[in-house]
Amino acid sequence: MGLTFQVLATEGLARRGRLTLAHGVVETPAFMPVGTRAAVKSVTMDDVRALGADIVLANTYHLHLRPGDPLIARAGGLHAFMGWDRPILTDSGGYQVFSLAERRTLSEEGVVFRSHLDGQLCSLTPESAADIQARLGSDVAMMFDECPSWPATHDETHATMARTLRWARRGRERFQALGTGQATDVLRPNAGQVQFGIIQGGTYKDLRDQSVVGTLEVGFDGYAIGGLSVGEPVEVMYDITAHTAAQLPGTMPRYLMGTGMPDDLFESVDRGIDLFDCVLPTRNARNGQLFTRSGPINIKHARYAEDARPPDPDCGCPTCRRHSRAYLRHLFMAGEMTAATLNTLHNLHFYLDTMRSIRDAIKFGRFAELKRAFLETYSRRQAE
Amino acid sequence: MGLTFQVLATEGLARRGRLTLAHGVVETPAFMPVGTRAAVKSVTMDDVRALGADIVLANTYHLHLRPGDPLIARAGGLHAFMGWDRPILTDSGGYQVFSLAERRTLSEEGVVFRSHLDGQLCSLTPESAADIQARLGSDVAMMFDECPSWPATHDETHATMARTLRWARRGRERFQALGTGQATDVLRPNAGQVQFGIIQGGTYKDLRDQSVVGTLEVGFDGYAIGGLSVGEPVEVMYDITAHTAAQLPGTMPRYLMGTGMPDDLFESVDRGIDLFDCVLPTRNARNGQLFTRSGPINIKHARYAEDARPPDPDCGCPTCRRHSRAYLRHLFMAGEMTAATLNTLHNLHFYLDTMRSIRDAIKFGRFAELKRAFLETYSRRQAE
Repeated sequence: MGLTFQVLATEGLARRGRLTLAHGVVETPAFMPVGTRAAVKSVTMDDVRALGADIVLANTYHLHLRPGDPLIARAGGLHAFMGWDRPILTDSGGYQVFSLAERRTLSEEGVVFRSHLDGQLCSLTPESAADIQARLGSDVAMMFDECPSWPATHDETHATMARTLRWARRGRERFQALGTGQATDVLRPNAGQVQFGIIQGGTYKDLRDQSVVGTLEVGFDGYAIGGLSVGEPVEVMYDITAHTAAQLPGTMPRYLMGTGMPDDLFESVDRGIDLFDCVLPTRNARNGQLFTRSGPINIKHARYAEDARPPDPDCGCPTCRRHSRAYLRHLFMAGEMTAATLNTLHNLHFYLDTMRSIRDAIKFGRFAELKRAFLETYSRRQAE
Repeated sequence: MGLTFQVLATEGLARRGRLTLAHGVVETPAFMPVGTRAAVKSVTMDDVRALGADIVLANTYHLHLRPGDPLIARAGGLHAFMGWDRPILTDSGGYQVFSLAERRTLSEEGVVFRSHLDGQLCSLTPESAADIQARLGSDVAMMFDECPSWPATHDETHATMARTLRWARRGRERFQALGTGQATDVLRPNAGQVQFGIIQGGTYKDLRDQSVVGTLEVGFDGYAIGGLSVGEPVEVMYDITAHTAAQLPGTMPRYLMGTGMPDDLFESVDRGIDLFDCVLPTRNARNGQLFTRSGPINIKHARYAEDARPPDPDCGCPTCRRHSRAYLRHLFMAGEMTAATLNTLHNLHFYLDTMRSIRDAIKFGRFAELKRAFLETYSRRQAE
């Protein structure tokens, strides 16, 4: 039970690792495709596996509202429900409750809010977030945290961080009570579930320090850095990531939540990060943005109307092997759902393949070289 | 060049055949998934091939309007453009111009209409429909016909049928002029394209007879029965299909356009039909209707909320192998695009697998038995 994490190789702070969870092995550094409502939008779980994903993320907030965690628990948990027998990480619902829910009221107890679907009154607390994730049966549950907006003052951020620490203790206690059978009212389909803590503290290093100390004191199975990629300059994000990651135990996995652009993956691995999730590859695919070795392109652009080249000539994904930019542009302009499918396959392949290259590079001591080469050709700005 | 059609086995009027077109072999009786705008909605061409389709249908009207047949011709034709190297049949645009286009004016010359996309003035004639399809480079082009609505009087139907016959001659002449190089202004990426004629005449047998005689006199590479599945009672459709098919040459493929429900496939094969196309499996999938051995089910229904069975327990498709009705209902209710993908995979598999069973059955002289068994368990009415 629980997780094992082996560091197989390092280069600087970059780590090539192997995370073993209840439903299998995750080769790290790893990118987790986002399957918000128990599906990665516009593709199938067979597709996701064929693209090489070891683990996916699902959203507690969305699944709690619909179809409901008790229904999923009765179905045998999220793995059985969604037909994915490999690792799953669930977020705690904190981020969505602060970004999506309506009329939320925050108190020491937790958050009371109205569902964005039907206005129904709901609540999430450190305890209920643990219970919901226990019912979902994910391999990794996340503690419930308060997500600060950006920018925020030192005082505001301190208050958020301090409350998150108090919630960390309550969430961990509930998780452990579930694990030891003290809370028998919760159907718990995955006895091997582990729980990660979340470090908050915004862009203030002293608050990050306090958050690390307090969260480690509570003690989790792994640690995430939250509250970044929320609007702060990218250099600040890298700086806080480096500062925080350095204080987390080297023997445990480190997860940078909600990041990021392809170059962020390199920069964050270089600062000791092992796990990533981000909606960019899937969401941008549906908006017609395709990632390539030289930067993102927007397939809507008229310049692609008769472009016979695949989206990325260096890419071996199913979309690039078979289709031209001209065809993908036609599908997108015509509003064909297949456009979303083909674009998503490409973008997920791009992210997962980038992680594969990173893992191989660390193994052979060539990560610095790979990163330099990538950043030399990759431009964040869209080629137009 | 041209097609070959071998009848490998027969049972009554049912034929097990092999149609060889410029881009490969179609085992008949065959169902053609509909790829209206050069894509089968919500799935990829790799999916379509993996499901076992030998041939797909694409729509002349839609592709003429967007992205335009000259663009597709410059891309090397529809096969290169859409990444499908197997046979393609294109309709003539007639059906869409009569059902979708705005403010159309019909004359002996053809149809002038406004695009349903942007109101642009367009026209289709027997000659231009041949030219457009030549540019698309499909393996089978269809002659341009006038599609009558139902019901229609004998006089109305006669006028439609007679005009269609005059258009047949013009369309065939243009097709032949393209083939012999007399019309050099049309880029023609598939030198092996063949053309099918279309029999009209509505539900009047005497008009069907006249249409057959006249169309055979023009002479095409294969023959289709048009103007059915437009609202007439199913018994009338079967009767007219039988009556018309019996007069078509036994050595050439027979295509029943736009049909139908799963039981229609059996009834029509039994009356000598070799080729089918229909939007039902794909369109109904997007509306949540899944075909099963016992009849269609609508996955939206609350009774499926906790149903752990696959859509069809007897089905081996990727959706049924991995997913429950409960999961598919959740995806549908949540508006996830993956619902359309998984439902479409299932329904196309159902149709293509039904055709496989039919082909095998005819080969072994067991078609009557298969048909009886199918009709005994299959109900057109939705199980609710």
